[in-house]
Order: sequence, then C-alpha cells, then structure tokens
Amino acid sequence: MPRDGRLAHPKLAGDGRQAAALGAALRDVAMAELEAAGHAVQVSDLYAQRWKSEVDRADFPQLPQDVRLQVPAASRDAFAAGALTGDVLAEQRKLLWADALILQFPLWWFSMPAILKGWVDRVFSFGFAYGVGEHSERCWGDRYGEGTLAGRRAMVVVTIGGWQEHYGARGINGPIDDLLFPIQHGILFYPGYDVLPPFVVYRADRLDPDGFAQAADRLRERMRTLATTPPIPYRKQNHGDYLIPTMQLRPDLGRGAAGFALHRLDGKG
Amino acid sequence: MPRDGRLAHPKLAGDGRQAAALGAALRDVAMAELEAAGHAVQVSDLYAQRWKSEVDRADFPQLPQDVRLQVPAASRDAFAAGALTGDVLAEQRKLLWADALILQFPLWWFSMPAILKGWVDRVFSFGFAYGVGEHSERCWGDRYGEGTLAGRRAMVVVTIGGWQEHYGARGINGPIDDLLFPIQHGILFYPGYDVLPPFVVYRADRLDPDGFAQAADRLRERMRTLATTPPIPYRKQNHGDYLIPTMQLRPDLGRGAAGFALHRLDGKG
Repeated sequence: MPRDGRLAHPKLAGDGRQAAALGAALRDVAMAELEAAGHAVQVSDLYAQRWKSEVDRADFPQLPQDVRLQVPAASRDAFAAGALTGDVLAEQRKLLWADALILQFPLWWFSMPAILKGWVDRVFSFGFAYGVGEHSERCWGDRYGEGTLAGRRAMVVVTIGGWQEHYGARGINGPIDDLLFPIQHGILFYPGYDVLPPFVVYRADRLDPDGFAQAADRLRERMRTLATTPPIPYRKQNHGDYLIPTMQLRPDLGRGAAGFALHRLDGKG
Repeated sequence: MPRDGRLAHPKLAGDGRQAAALGAALRDVAMAELEAAGHAVQVSDLYAQRWKSEVDRADFPQLPQDVRLQVPAASRDAFAAGALTGDVLAEQRKLLWADALILQFPLWWFSMPAILKGWVDRVFSFGFAYGVGEHSERCWGDRYGEGTLAGRRAMVVVTIGGWQEHYGARGINGPIDDLLFPIQHGILFYPGYDVLPPFVVYRADRLDPDGFAQAADRLRERMRTLATTPPIPYRKQNHGDYLIPTMQLRPDLGRGAAGFALHRLDGKG
C-alpha cells in the first residue's frame, strides 16, 4: 500500500546530529516500518522543497492582471483549466497516488506551522478538496466523509513541547482531540479522508533515549495497523444526520454531547 | 488610544475595484471609526509587506552554522540578545505600542491563512510571548492572562464564506467559538491579552450592499466599544483555578461544562 508522508519541520543542518532531531527520527522510523512491510512511501519535506506558504496572485498565472483576486473563484477556474502551479499539481498527484496520508508536524501555537498550513491552503484547491459535488435536497456538496479523497486514510503525527496533562480533558490548553478538530475534521475529513486517531508525543523537546524508544515503538505499531485501525467515527454529512441546507445536527441526535463531540457517532470529545 | 490592525488578505490589484474587496473595506471602516475618535492606528498588511511565513535558520542569524536548529532555544537566545530579525522586531514594537490588537483574516480551512500563522510563529518569540516568568508552586510561567501583553486588548475580525447556521452550536463545522479557541485562548490570551468576543461576517463572498452596510455598522459599534466591551471570561492560570504543575482545572470547578468551555468562568462553549 503506498503511503505519503508530509513533514513540516525546519530543515536541519546537514551534519551528523541531524538524525537526533525528533521529527526526522520519527519520520525515519515510520518510513522504515512501512517499507519493511512492502509499502511505497513518498515524502514531501516542505522545508527542503522550499514550499511557498502564501496564497497570492502568483498561484493563478492565468488570472488577468486587471481582475481582482478572489481566491475561491481563482482556485476553481485554475483547477478546472489544469492551470494550477506545478508545485501544487505535484502535491495533488501524490495525494491521489497514496492510500494514506500522514501529516507530521510540531504543534506551534496549538496548530500546524505556517508552512504546513500553506500547503493546505494551496494544495486543497476548489474543485479538488472543496467545492466538489452537487447541492440539492439530499446532498450539500461532497464533503465531510465524501469527496475527492474518500476511501483513503489520513493521520496526524504531532510532537508537542508541553505536558500530556496540560492537554487532557481538564487541562488548561484544552483537550488535544478538540485542538486537533479543525485539522482532523475540518481539513482531513472534509475532502473525504477516513481520519485515524492522532499519534502524539508530549514533552518532545526533553525526550530521553528511553522515551524516544517508547515513542518509536508506539509509532511502529501505528504504522503496522495503518490499514486496520478504526477511524475516528465522525458523522458523514449526507447520510441523514444533518438537516439540509442548515447543516444542523438533527435534534434527536447527539443527546448528552456538546461542542465538537456532537459530530462523532460515539459522542466523545 | 493607539490601535494596531493586522491584516491577512491577498494583496489586491491596484485598480478601482480594490475598495470593493470585503477585507480591505472592513479594514477601512474600522480605521475610519477609530481615527474619528482620535485614536492612532498602525496597520500591518502582511501581503503588502511580503511577510516571510516560515520559521527557519534565516530567523536566527547568530545561530552558528554547525548548531542544529531547535526553534524554542534559538528563539530564546535571539530574543535575549536582541538578535531577532528586523521584521520581527518591528512587529513586536508595534504590539508594545498598541493598547489593542485586531487580527483580521478570512477563515481558511477553519483557521487563519498561512501568512498570518507565520506572523504568529515568528513574532511570538520565546521570551516575548512564551517562556515568560518563573515556574514555582504558585506560578507556572506568566501565561494565560499574564505575560508581556497583559493589560492590552485583542479581538479577531473574521470573514467566513459559509453560513452562520453551519457554525452554530449544532452546526456541522463546529461552533465558531470553539473553532476560534486555539486562536483566542491559545494565541491571544496566552501572552496576556484580554480577548474580546470575535466579530464575524458569514457568507462573506456573497455580501450585497445592504449586507455590507449592516456589517459595517456592527463593526463601527465594536470599534466604539473596543475599550469597554467585556472580554471573554477565560480563567487565568495562576489565580487558583488550576492545579500546579499538572494545570488541571480544580475538580470542584467547571461542573456541568466540558471541553473548551471549562476554561471560561461562565462555562460557555
């Protein structure tokens, strides 16, 4: 099964200590495990690729200079015309090639680093990741469980400087599953991915060799079970749970849950 | 009262239709209202400034080439030595100058555009926005209500393409207050800001002249009340509500609430 790893860690100095960097080390652990099982892996190292983070006019070379940039419309037209830039098209091809996507990043300010957000902003174009499908009484676009990437799996691998307790159900930062909801539900489930539970390493800056060995073992296990781990049971949009077009969860569903947990069949936060 | 507006909208073509762009129009409405009341305003237009979004070695010119980049340590050393890059120092000076910060952006993939996240990643350096204060039995760093920017106000102005219902308490995207929690609590309250309720415009791509006039009126009112609007009542970290060092909300607090709502004194989501 092909795999697609995507990395957003600052490019490291090319010396012997590079392998000690946690992000690169975890990537290597995951790749080795996948390749040992016979999978093909493509890596997009955004820093090494010098990925362009900002959406701007340069992303739409066919947009006439006298037309004001409106990103959704420009994205729609460029995707339809096959006129997106080469770096974006290459990433879209990788996503269509891969059965699974792994987004690996350090949690910065409770979200992904800018360079990875810029990968999402540019690669997830109109017609590819949003603006897909018809709008009718039965369907409000192919999204949230349907769409271009349906039938594929995605998973977040995230390294966090803080303590696990600070990200617990009552921890001051907020529960990690809720902090990741805009990414896991809003970015990955939206265009169709089945989203696996996240792989999280806490106190990543202070991991000692034993701690790394344990994290590596956990990650290897997650790679071995990538095709079989049950995904987070997010509710699909067009399967009757939501009213169209207001997209409210039906009043008889989700009793006892609130917030993001409403959108999981198991009601968990 | 000085004000500091910060914008992340793609730079528009310099033609007559520029003023029609919603982001620029809302910025102009807010600035005019503030200046009419005698306030000074500085604008950081990130696209116009060609803001660099990615954190990388170039941000730490004093870091020896043979030292591996570890961002928190490099950020700490550069801030302490006054060796951050000029663009970052200029933004930090603006934040220290302003009594209030307004972050204006379109909601892209349920968060801020990459260029604005890159402003946070780079400007909110160690020693400035995190890694501030002592760690003891009574204090776990100056954060979440304390810190460099304490005593100042911040507010998000966000334009959203989707429907308000889709961002309601039971809407499929999740409640807007929860989607903004990583920004409002994790980015703004963390270094000390009092965070005002967000100003949100829905269906922003389809706003007709009447809709714009109404949004402009609402925004003017928010500018007039910028100094008096009660902030979101997030719980302060070092005032007894959280156990140190696990930073768990005390068991006797937040009954009946869950998720992010635990961290508000009013228990609202």
